[in-house]
Amino acid sequence: MFDFHYFTPTKVIFGKNTELQTAALIREFGGKKVLIHYGGGSVIRSGLLKRVTDNLEEAGIDYVTLGGAVPNPRLGLVYEGIELCKKEGVDFLLAVGGGSAIDSAKAIGYGVANEGDVWDFYDYKRKVTGCLPLGVILTIAATGSEMSNSSVITKEDGLIKRGCSSDFGRPRFAIMNPELTMTLPDYQTACGCTDIMMHTMERYFTNGGNMEITDAIAEGLLRIVMKNAEILVKDPKNYDARAEVMWAGSLSHNGLTGCGSDGGDWMTHKLEHELGGLYDVAHGAGLAAVWGSWARYVCDSCLPRFKRFAVHVMGVEEKGSDKEIALKGIEALEDFFRRIKMPTNLRELGVTTSEEDMKTMAHKCAAGLGGSGGSAKVLHEEDMLAIYKASL
Amino acid sequence: MFDFHYFTPTKVIFGKNTELQTAALIREFGGKKVLIHYGGGSVIRSGLLKRVTDNLEEAGIDYVTLGGAVPNPRLGLVYEGIELCKKEGVDFLLAVGGGSAIDSAKAIGYGVANEGDVWDFYDYKRKVTGCLPLGVILTIAATGSEMSNSSVITKEDGLIKRGCSSDFGRPRFAIMNPELTMTLPDYQTACGCTDIMMHTMERYFTNGGNMEITDAIAEGLLRIVMKNAEILVKDPKNYDARAEVMWAGSLSHNGLTGCGSDGGDWMTHKLEHELGGLYDVAHGAGLAAVWGSWARYVCDSCLPRFKRFAVHVMGVEEKGSDKEIALKGIEALEDFFRRIKMPTNLRELGVTTSEEDMKTMAHKCAAGLGGSGGSAKVLHEEDMLAIYKASL
Repeated sequence: MFDFHYFTPTKVIFGKNTELQTAALIREFGGKKVLIHYGGGSVIRSGLLKRVTDNLEEAGIDYVTLGGAVPNPRLGLVYEGIELCKKEGVDFLLAVGGGSAIDSAKAIGYGVANEGDVWDFYDYKRKVTGCLPLGVILTIAATGSEMSNSSVITKEDGLIKRGCSSDFGRPRFAIMNPELTMTLPDYQTACGCTDIMMHTMERYFTNGGNMEITDAIAEGLLRIVMKNAEILVKDPKNYDARAEVMWAGSLSHNGLTGCGSDGGDWMTHKLEHELGGLYDVAHGAGLAAVWGSWARYVCDSCLPRFKRFAVHVMGVEEKGSDKEIALKGIEALEDFFRRIKMPTNLRELGVTTSEEDMKTMAHKCAAGLGGSGGSAKVLHEEDMLAIYKASL
Repeated sequence: MFDFHYFTPTKVIFGKNTELQTAALIREFGGKKVLIHYGGGSVIRSGLLKRVTDNLEEAGIDYVTLGGAVPNPRLGLVYEGIELCKKEGVDFLLAVGGGSAIDSAKAIGYGVANEGDVWDFYDYKRKVTGCLPLGVILTIAATGSEMSNSSVITKEDGLIKRGCSSDFGRPRFAIMNPELTMTLPDYQTACGCTDIMMHTMERYFTNGGNMEITDAIAEGLLRIVMKNAEILVKDPKNYDARAEVMWAGSLSHNGLTGCGSDGGDWMTHKLEHELGGLYDVAHGAGLAAVWGSWARYVCDSCLPRFKRFAVHVMGVEEKGSDKEIALKGIEALEDFFRRIKMPTNLRELGVTTSEEDMKTMAHKCAAGLGGSGGSAKVLHEEDMLAIYKASL
């Protein structure tokens, strides 16, 4: 068991119509001039943005808006947001959307509260020392960014996708109304469920210390996300299933499922980040496409955890060798991915890559990690390349 | 499923020697003049208090001390602490100890930050509007007060024990070093484990909505506390078992195990509060002594939850009627209490009560609740009396 820090200051307001509490929450946290940051037109079409701006106007809270946050959110828009905040005297950020809008808002918050180029924080050159206070209205259960300290931004020049983790970026509040996620396309819902599971699995498959209570929470969370992801394939407007997935998304990435471990493996995420940077694929689908190849590649080095996963999460019978049980667990999860229409390789993901591109991704991935990374098995550039090749 | 709020801002620093980070944390949260509040002499004898004051002195942080917080902490000491803080210009509270010191410190914090008599907040007359910032060094895993919004104080005049819940009272940081709990007497350890379990069970046995992910966390937590409580009976210095119990104590009462429910039942706690006010028994032991009688009394009104508890937590086979399974679950938990040397009735608790005293307790309990309380079954004064009688 490792020592740990646990810090989840985000005030969660969970349930129906909770977006109508936005103005009250902004006021509670001292916001007077708000930048509302969102993604595409869906929050406009659904009427959510109008409900929120009405709510702010009724409360007499001044705001400006900035749309356009895309999946794998771009640095260019972050710069634009920083300028807008400075020009307008913004003192509070409100992200309305999923991980893209939230991650982008965090980056804007870092840029306003810190001198110099905000990309430095993503390029591991400097540490964040503050962030404009940020609230969230969540419309996609996936990244867990609504409670996490994490933000991932892509620099257009070179398509470099990098993450910055800082407790300063943890949102002050997160409004979570499961109904807001009901109109998501099925593919997005499945991608979100995959991402949620991966945030727990990245922390679960380690050779660092473990904690029984963390394992119990992680395993329960994974089983429940799988169960409800399958319900949502057939019944996308099931409130309870939406709520279970939404709350699991936050718990999966706020730190709870990593307490007592060494911090986790995170190599599936790192491998996918390069994919996402180069091909702009949906993050959750990219994770599903890579995971099986990663799991088979590292399984021998982390066999007790893969066996435990197979038995406790996937319901595999404890028969045969540990390796056989572990492999059955991996297969069972891939079967689940197929049932929710997620890819289990790059072909199914729709990515046609080349030897050259795979070498580039492996090189960038290793470079971003200072040469190597992972806990289930420490991977170097050649290992990363081998996993990309196995996932074709 | 009910809507819910979730707010756990406490920064947790968990692991060995973490008490040496005290000064740095107080500084991080802006403290300049500290009141160190503790209970009996154990923190002096163990050398912990000296380590902490040395740590503060090295960092140049000024402090005053106030010991004497007793189990079922008293209002008189709270008044004393408030006066001391005002006289000395204290701007930060540091509780060193278990629930008694922390609850007492919260009350002091309310008294300093709010005008008027602090008892008003415990007597449900006024709402708390602020609290002096508070940090904790935890030495007993039990009440969960290190992350909770709860404080329970006993007024000497009439021995009235009342709780006050306010998010303002949630500690800014909690230092949790499992080693600090290793010297606890076995009885205290068992009392703590019981209290931890009850915080989850009070939220679990409801007729309000439930959430699958909350149930999975609650059931995992209960199983793990039971397993490790039994380990600690034989091996009190087992670090991992101490750590599991300590972290479970925080998670059990920070709100996590209640998300999506109606807030819980809490009648075992309320019944025990009256016992504790009148007889000054150890809180955990009092809960264990009352729980079985409460459970049998309300079981029919909340049968699906008692059945689920029996199967998922106590490992009872799903054979026979729901009622039979439920009763087996109750018996199994009482068997567990006996294995960790907890009482399962008032006699074993060492309390000889009278018809008159039971009537007084039932009356005070009902009055404190405005007439009735509970979710598994709504209990009135006559029900409370019946449960006290059944627990003789």
